[in-house]
Amino acid sequence: MDKSGQQLRLCLAQINSTVGDLEGNLAKILAAIDTARTSGCSLVAFPELALCGYPPEDLLLNKSFLKANAKYIKKVAAHSQGIAVICGFVGSSADRVFNSALVAEDGKALYTYSKVALPNYGVFDEKRYFTPGSEIPLLKFGEALAGLNICEDIWICPGITESQASLGARLILNTSASPYHMRRVEERIDLLRDRAQRNNCHVAYVNLVGGQDELIFDGASMVVNPAGKVIAGAEAFAEDMLVIDLEIPTTAAEEIPATASVADHEEPFRVKVVNLNSSGVAEKASKAGHSGERQLPLAEEVFRALVLGTRDYIQKNGFSNVVIGLSGGIDSALTLAVAVEALGADSVHCIFMPSQFTSELSFTAAERQARLLGCRMETIPIDEIYNVYVRELKPHYPRIATGLTSENLQARIRGNILMAYSNRSGAIVLNTSNKSEAAVGYTTLYGDMVGGFAVLKDIPKTLVFEISRYLNKSRSREVIAEEIIARPPTAELKADQADSDSLPPYEVLDEILRLYVELDTEEAEIVRLGFERKTVKRVIAMVRAAEYKRRQSPPGIKVTPRAFGRDRRWPITNRF
Amino acid sequence: MDKSGQQLRLCLAQINSTVGDLEGNLAKILAAIDTARTSGCSLVAFPELALCGYPPEDLLLNKSFLKANAKYIKKVAAHSQGIAVICGFVGSSADRVFNSALVAEDGKALYTYSKVALPNYGVFDEKRYFTPGSEIPLLKFGEALAGLNICEDIWICPGITESQASLGARLILNTSASPYHMRRVEERIDLLRDRAQRNNCHVAYVNLVGGQDELIFDGASMVVNPAGKVIAGAEAFAEDMLVIDLEIPTTAAEEIPATASVADHEEPFRVKVVNLNSSGVAEKASKAGHSGERQLPLAEEVFRALVLGTRDYIQKNGFSNVVIGLSGGIDSALTLAVAVEALGADSVHCIFMPSQFTSELSFTAAERQARLLGCRMETIPIDEIYNVYVRELKPHYPRIATGLTSENLQARIRGNILMAYSNRSGAIVLNTSNKSEAAVGYTTLYGDMVGGFAVLKDIPKTLVFEISRYLNKSRSREVIAEEIIARPPTAELKADQADSDSLPPYEVLDEILRLYVELDTEEAEIVRLGFERKTVKRVIAMVRAAEYKRRQSPPGIKVTPRAFGRDRRWPITNRF
Repeated sequence: MDKSGQQLRLCLAQINSTVGDLEGNLAKILAAIDTARTSGCSLVAFPELALCGYPPEDLLLNKSFLKANAKYIKKVAAHSQGIAVICGFVGSSADRVFNSALVAEDGKALYTYSKVALPNYGVFDEKRYFTPGSEIPLLKFGEALAGLNICEDIWICPGITESQASLGARLILNTSASPYHMRRVEERIDLLRDRAQRNNCHVAYVNLVGGQDELIFDGASMVVNPAGKVIAGAEAFAEDMLVIDLEIPTTAAEEIPATASVADHEEPFRVKVVNLNSSGVAEKASKAGHSGERQLPLAEEVFRALVLGTRDYIQKNGFSNVVIGLSGGIDSALTLAVAVEALGADSVHCIFMPSQFTSELSFTAAERQARLLGCRMETIPIDEIYNVYVRELKPHYPRIATGLTSENLQARIRGNILMAYSNRSGAIVLNTSNKSEAAVGYTTLYGDMVGGFAVLKDIPKTLVFEISRYLNKSRSREVIAEEIIARPPTAELKADQADSDSLPPYEVLDEILRLYVELDTEEAEIVRLGFERKTVKRVIAMVRAAEYKRRQSPPGIKVTPRAFGRDRRWPITNRF
Repeated sequence: MDKSGQQLRLCLAQINSTVGDLEGNLAKILAAIDTARTSGCSLVAFPELALCGYPPEDLLLNKSFLKANAKYIKKVAAHSQGIAVICGFVGSSADRVFNSALVAEDGKALYTYSKVALPNYGVFDEKRYFTPGSEIPLLKFGEALAGLNICEDIWICPGITESQASLGARLILNTSASPYHMRRVEERIDLLRDRAQRNNCHVAYVNLVGGQDELIFDGASMVVNPAGKVIAGAEAFAEDMLVIDLEIPTTAAEEIPATASVADHEEPFRVKVVNLNSSGVAEKASKAGHSGERQLPLAEEVFRALVLGTRDYIQKNGFSNVVIGLSGGIDSALTLAVAVEALGADSVHCIFMPSQFTSELSFTAAERQARLLGCRMETIPIDEIYNVYVRELKPHYPRIATGLTSENLQARIRGNILMAYSNRSGAIVLNTSNKSEAAVGYTTLYGDMVGGFAVLKDIPKTLVFEISRYLNKSRSREVIAEEIIARPPTAELKADQADSDSLPPYEVLDEILRLYVELDTEEAEIVRLGFERKTVKRVIAMVRAAEYKRRQSPPGIKVTPRAFGRDRRWPITNRF
């Protein structure tokens, strides 16, 4: 390391903002600034749009919301005595809106950077709202230079990061709100390692944490050194403050040009140098956070994502209690385990709703499952209600008690009972459907599809099993009743029913779905990969035909690289 | 008009494409080419993405879909013997996708234009998919020049239209897929008139027609002369072929530059001149279509939009029958009128589901309503079913038969019965909720919110009344039973209930909603416009709180400038 380096104590403030809660988010930001200042930090950086939460969606079209951002960011600036602060907010002028980061110090707003690269794919719609920035900021600490940019900016390569490095920046500060999907941290590490090595600089990456509707932000902020090593990391799926001392090589005192180019942009960008005072620290602090890379087992990672997503959806929407229809099957058992971890057993109520087709095993398994997790379960049989429907409807529809009509009716009676409990108690119904079912439409609209939030919406059935087995092993106790893991999946809507009567084995189904839904693999290619043509055709046809059902499903947590919903925008009316 | 003008017989082929139905759309396109050729046309132009339908959404991420576009557009080109054809399709190269228009003649593909201005606001997500084009096409007929561009291209001003005119184009051909909302035709006329006058050219505008999920394309293709007069127009809400003879002034034979600029674009665009043979016609044809502007009454316009949207959703999804829960109220009555107009009385089944709270008036009105429109109505009382629910649930929830729980339960029993009929018969349930209810959440999830398609989803209650009164007047017969129009709205879920017990008068509610939802007017401004602060606050709070319900509502027809759904993307979790 350069002997003439500039000492810098940096704090990455990985906070959990709530969309629209400017007052609450401000309080978190001010408290984090105080903590960072007390820890002797020169600079504290917050995630992308930390002040208003991410993504604010069409709130960004609302003038009051833009005004509130402008008002509250001033309070952040005013709180920056003795420390440099970088904080994401929505910038706006008369007719334009920006994804901005404030740079403030000593109570003053010094500069506002606006994001250049605006993602407009997958779950992102940033070009709907934001005007891209056209400036390259360089933050000057003593004789050292740092480049500030926002989220997607660092994913585009070559891009603004490379321009900043070529202008002398030896530290890149990236503030992000990067949504979670499985193994996303590894993708980010690969990316940041590349950028650090390519540009011979440290990269400090601060990511948002928390659940927002269908998205999880997983935190896992980190610092990578110029050799490409992760030298410090914050917790995943929790708030954290990562404090680290860095020595940034100073840059030769050459004149910094007034403009510079950014790859793929025709016009040159203005270069803005922001001089900061709080440039050094007396002595080294011990690092906070863990050092280096830590990889959670996949099942652990996904379980934590589900817990965070469920807790935040419930609590940020002002609820505290949930109700779950326990069936004695694995989906409702895992949903229960997530809910109990997220909210505590006292906040989770279980209802078991047997019919004539419900086995004794289902009852004993459901009851034991509730008991394993310390929850109350009440039993409300549906047969009497079902019989009266049949009696009332049979004169009109003689075959009411047969086939799909009968099966759907049972599921809908259960849905009604859960909703009645919700109405009476104020508890949110947690939906228990998994992604495999939703994909092929093996669900009943207004029946097992009811709910305020769908915990397993993006979890394929095989992963439901994997997480369940993992929990029992890793927790050294029976989290999911073993008899539930052991039994073959069944909807129990007719006698001796098994999912495998209607669907391919889940190992086959889930892999075809992954190829078709997540990777857009063509039918012929899936067949070439070794799946039976008939099965592939049938699965694809089922996925297409179920689009209308998915449109009416509750929101749920994105976990895979492509979830149903705004991540995959298929028309309902579609003959292709 | 220039004496040395070039004669041109033009056909604007306003077809109703189905998304993804390349085979069916191709058949329509080939038939229209034949008709245009037989009529002696020099050129036939089809709407934006006519070959694959609009909007294809994430089908555009699917390689098979892109290949199919490439394959089928060749068949269009091959069919262009003796006539020039312009047809929208999805163009693609290795890693890029374009919103393209083919120019073909005499069996050969001559040129492909790619749209420059990609809308990414409101219901549009074009930047998610398309790379903008970078060429300015000029079509040369004899010595006359025409500029071709696509939809949004002509809305941006100055833009490519102005560049084309400055290069000598005296006719602008714009191919569109422009979604309907109320009074949209007038907006388009104002726009096209401005572009024609500003650029001293004719503008020929061909728009898609048909329903696609929540969007209606209303057709109403037209030709505007350089004086800004609409000289010919096609039907609205129906397929039509508009044939018109134009005399286009020839352009001095100056050298056309190889590149030219387009406003707001840094780089110059390549200019492409496409020489066409079929440049003249011997004698004048009589114009098809109507001449000049024709304004439908608003209620007529909206009714036709609803009819087209309903028919296309049902038929394009392969259904033929629908079922409607008639209540004796105005929403279900108007939904029935739309359905009967769209599908015929024989395809529409009505179910009346009285409870203890249902008045005699509701029964007689519903029955007469069905009879007025020639439909069958069956009556299925819900009391017995309701009573059994109460009996079974009361031990668990003593207050089950009171308040909202009781009201929602009744609505959900009705929902179940409609769905059971749908399961048995294959008919789609038409939802009857209006926009005012959906806005404030005055609806029951899985109850009156059930359905495959929501006809009145974007129709405020006051407009429901207006259309109903209009139908009776304009049709000179009772389309909507007068006693239904006359009675005060009620949900009849408890004794002597009226909507006005829970909601402000609909005249007040709808205007606040229009200001808040459609125009993003701030609360303080709405108050300044003369509404009671308490009422405004309450309405806004209700709209925010109901977002979670709207996410699970069936798709329905966009009619206002801003519908709920992808037109208004609010977060559920939101504390602002």
